[in-house]
Amino acid sequence: MTIDEQTPTGLNIFAIPDIPEIQPGDDLAAMLASSTIYLPHDVLVVTQKVVSKAEGQLVAIDPSDPLAHKAIVEQESVRILRRRGELIISETAHGFVCANAGIDLSNVERGQAALLPVDSDRSARRIRDVVRAQQGIEIGVIISDTFGRPWRRGVTDVAIGSAGIGPILDLRGTEDSLGRELMVTEVAVVDEIAAAAELVMGKSTGLPAAVVRGIPADWFRTGSVKDDIVRSPADDLFR
Amino acid sequence: MTIDEQTPTGLNIFAIPDIPEIQPGDDLAAMLASSTIYLPHDVLVVTQKVVSKAEGQLVAIDPSDPLAHKAIVEQESVRILRRRGELIISETAHGFVCANAGIDLSNVERGQAALLPVDSDRSARRIRDVVRAQQGIEIGVIISDTFGRPWRRGVTDVAIGSAGIGPILDLRGTEDSLGRELMVTEVAVVDEIAAAAELVMGKSTGLPAAVVRGIPADWFRTGSVKDDIVRSPADDLFR
Repeated sequence: MTIDEQTPTGLNIFAIPDIPEIQPGDDLAAMLASSTIYLPHDVLVVTQKVVSKAEGQLVAIDPSDPLAHKAIVEQESVRILRRRGELIISETAHGFVCANAGIDLSNVERGQAALLPVDSDRSARRIRDVVRAQQGIEIGVIISDTFGRPWRRGVTDVAIGSAGIGPILDLRGTEDSLGRELMVTEVAVVDEIAAAAELVMGKSTGLPAAVVRGIPADWFRTGSVKDDIVRSPADDLFR
Repeated sequence: MTIDEQTPTGLNIFAIPDIPEIQPGDDLAAMLASSTIYLPHDVLVVTQKVVSKAEGQLVAIDPSDPLAHKAIVEQESVRILRRRGELIISETAHGFVCANAGIDLSNVERGQAALLPVDSDRSARRIRDVVRAQQGIEIGVIISDTFGRPWRRGVTDVAIGSAGIGPILDLRGTEDSLGRELMVTEVAVVDEIAAAAELVMGKSTGLPAAVVRGIPADWFRTGSVKDDIVRSPADDLFR
């Protein structure tokens, strides 16, 4: 083995600067399409909060009522899995299992709560389509949100919607470097990309979108978070 | 908003090429320290399998016995959470909750199974120390493994050991872009970095290590996966 001056290739991930505070009715897709020059097979990751705001998924909440948040969480839940103190782990109508039905009060105006987008895959498709129309470039789009996990401390970003990129990389039938069939075979690449993008966006810096550049071309195909990532209760060991 | 020719900054992630097949007793830390030129605040992500092999965490397994794998999984588990068919979800002695106690048979010789490292934080510290000694550069090191999740299909890589980088970025008390205190406050950045690195390593390509370049300098501090990420059963809602 020799030391070379490594030319970094692989992935490059950067936040899109200068996106203004999003208001209900803003054309977020057009803003994202005009905010940077994309390359083919870029993946644009957009945080849920700005998508929800642009789509007007806001409800009034009385900031003086300590139970107001909880009431909205229960209304947005189709199944409560666990409660502890102010924390509710529940399943949303979209099939996501997460804390507080995905509703938090950060990064929205006082007196408002942002619900999840009605259909984040559709939101992703719309952004993908507008970038294609404006720049003639085929990209993948991921709508990301911040979820906790059982058994591990700390939250990570995952994909709640996607377009243009296959959510799962299915390695079933392929062999490892020693010629043995792989046991771990379905990689949730959209969740890994969402997590990677979070590293450059932060939670408090007003950077709601990032580009992941360098994803292999053959990962770009049809699929959606709803169809490919959301696990049905029947297949789930923890519901 | 204007379109600039975006100069990508942010993160760069690349796999380290030309790492040979690892054998028990190999000095993996020295091999990694001599395989690329690191920059200060790089994070080196190394997959569990090569760490386990180098550390001799291999046990013989009869490939003709369909129950042999299961027997090792049970032996390496301190608590079984769920069973379905050949799948066991259990808690390991390290406190990880994962499928098959983290033991799979891919990327090891037929007739062997690789157990998890005894102490992956210690493995990470050793690699960090050897890079520091050989190159005089302070880096972070993450040992990664591939875990499934309840409620979501597909696996993602997470950190099972770390050194030199704080596993959790704690944003408690900080404010969002609108001046409201953040509700989601503890980000598992080592898990996000492990996920990001997986995107360039793949499962079958013989690339067991990657560098994540561009992580903010103030994320580099003490901490370990065992102390900061592993959730105690008492704090857990799903055990």
